Amino acid sequence: MTITIALDAMGGDFGPSVVVPASAAALEQERDLSLILVGDPALVEAAMSECRLPRPGGRWVVRPASQQVEMDELPSAALRSKKDSSMRVAIDLVKVGTADACVSAGNTGALMAMARFVLKTLPGIDRPAIVSALPASGGHTHMLDLGANVGAGAEQLCQFAVMGSVLAQCVDGIASPSVGLLNIGAEEIKGNEQIKASHRLLTESDLNYAGFIEGDAIFRGQIDVVVCDGFVGNVALKTGEGIAKMFGERIREEFERTSFTRLAGAFAMPVLRRVRARMDPRAYNGATLIGLRGVVLKSHGGADRVAFAHAIRRAASEVREGIPDRVREHLETKLAEQEAV
Amino acid sequence: MTITIALDAMGGDFGPSVVVPASAAALEQERDLSLILVGDPALVEAAMSECRLPRPGGRWVVRPASQQVEMDELPSAALRSKKDSSMRVAIDLVKVGTADACVSAGNTGALMAMARFVLKTLPGIDRPAIVSALPASGGHTHMLDLGANVGAGAEQLCQFAVMGSVLAQCVDGIASPSVGLLNIGAEEIKGNEQIKASHRLLTESDLNYAGFIEGDAIFRGQIDVVVCDGFVGNVALKTGEGIAKMFGERIREEFERTSFTRLAGAFAMPVLRRVRARMDPRAYNGATLIGLRGVVLKSHGGADRVAFAHAIRRAASEVREGIPDRVREHLETKLAEQEAV
Repeated sequence: MTITIALDAMGGDFGPSVVVPASAAALEQERDLSLILVGDPALVEAAMSECRLPRPGGRWVVRPASQQVEMDELPSAALRSKKDSSMRVAIDLVKVGTADACVSAGNTGALMAMARFVLKTLPGIDRPAIVSALPASGGHTHMLDLGANVGAGAEQLCQFAVMGSVLAQCVDGIASPSVGLLNIGAEEIKGNEQIKASHRLLTESDLNYAGFIEGDAIFRGQIDVVVCDGFVGNVALKTGEGIAKMFGERIREEFERTSFTRLAGAFAMPVLRRVRARMDPRAYNGATLIGLRGVVLKSHGGADRVAFAHAIRRAASEVREGIPDRVREHLETKLAEQEAV
Repeated sequence: MTITIALDAMGGDFGPSVVVPASAAALEQERDLSLILVGDPALVEAAMSECRLPRPGGRWVVRPASQQVEMDELPSAALRSKKDSSMRVAIDLVKVGTADACVSAGNTGALMAMARFVLKTLPGIDRPAIVSALPASGGHTHMLDLGANVGAGAEQLCQFAVMGSVLAQCVDGIASPSVGLLNIGAEEIKGNEQIKASHRLLTESDLNYAGFIEGDAIFRGQIDVVVCDGFVGNVALKTGEGIAKMFGERIREEFERTSFTRLAGAFAMPVLRRVRARMDPRAYNGATLIGLRGVVLKSHGGADRVAFAHAIRRAASEVREGIPDRVREHLETKLAEQEAV
């Protein structure tokens, strides 16, 4: 079976200059992949001809789109007026079944709005959430929402918990993934009204709910799914990126200080490279818009070739796993149970 | 001039077993310091006699308190019924002028409620905020609120900006500190209603307002003061701690993998120790409850001896700098200007 993925070739900070070489790399890595690069044909083809990697033959095609969604454009405006944008056309290709999934590094709000309008949400889901795997001791943790739903209510946080739980079941094969609710303390008195109400709902649910967790527990590897509001999740994600980057810089600075430290650095380099590889945020690029009737991935806007290629491969893997269908089945079972009560 | 600091000796995860040796260390480090350890005399004195550091002579005294605030106690309940708790008595000592400042590692909400009730807020300030210096490229960034105000409104976020700005002026000697508002994107369309309203108010203010910043910019060292809601700030802080800890663990794991990496580790150790010293969260322990008519510091509940001693020294430094008076002067000038308009 060939997996076809539509790419918003104009999205993100770098457009075709990153999407095209990332596509070539992903095609090299995954033999069952075929890509549709959506965007300005002149720009995309120019990037293709500059691409020094072995040409992947007929496995990539260009699909023209005359418009582009800007990074600061209002989602509602993009939805209304950008019907021939690279982002919208890539989503439309999933809708009509030409593509199995789409990936964009563009405007998150617009991607959300368009994907929701075109593909629709699964039964029982108000709005999709953005979920990503983050590195944790001994593996990873799925965290959602990472920025799609600012001011999520208690019911919505529970929907995130269900979706995250199904995702962890599918991706990691865990029978009953543990779910934590991100709060500013482990005590029941902490948090705002949404958090407290969501805590009550989750306690009564049949999920493997582990209660409140604090920010530092995200990376401890004891929780499979971390649930939070989109504002909080996005800030936590980017704060983590910032800390990791500062850590890396300080290590570099200290090893470059004297000739002794430079020598020590030469010895330590292979080890530090392994640490970096394990912590590399590029290896975690590609956040899923979960809750949709289709696979849509959001890449980091500043993603480079390696990071964007990873997002493409993650999309392919979600198609292989049949994530949206499995989430839908789980939700339908839950809804049927509720109706039976 | 001697600076007298009242300590909640029963607070935090470890009570006197951390507060007492931390006190001894702080007294060794700061010659103008005198400490009042408030708590159960039997327990505090037992810890004092176990303390193997050179005894600091008459510079510490025990002040009995018969109660203790629990970590999961409701702030309102603690305020009503814990009038002879170690936390409350320490704050009372600041009120009557026996102590110049107090430090507690106990229940944050209760500390907030008691300090606000006993000491009162400065003119123009609704509620105090928790502010701390966080490590950043080339120095540090003051961030507030870190957990005292969940669901802060637009006006309150502006008050945080004013207080943080005055703090940066006093502590770092910056004439016009830059202030950033934490958001999930740099574009004007991002964020919730409070953030957008606060953005408008800050744009019109006479602060050196730099606009929206994202979580990764906290550590970049380009912004002197980062303003956010208490829920968001607390999650960001703890997420950062979690990432830093995971980073440290992975470095240790990789250096312990083979005999070659262990040898490389022996070379690299002095360098990595310097990195750790620069990033050590213990060197940043001690968050100020700013906006009060007095110096009150909150230590991390899990602080060890080194971390708690740092919080004591930070309190002493704020007394020396006369932070509350300087914030008050600034606020009074601002209020007078507003009335003149």
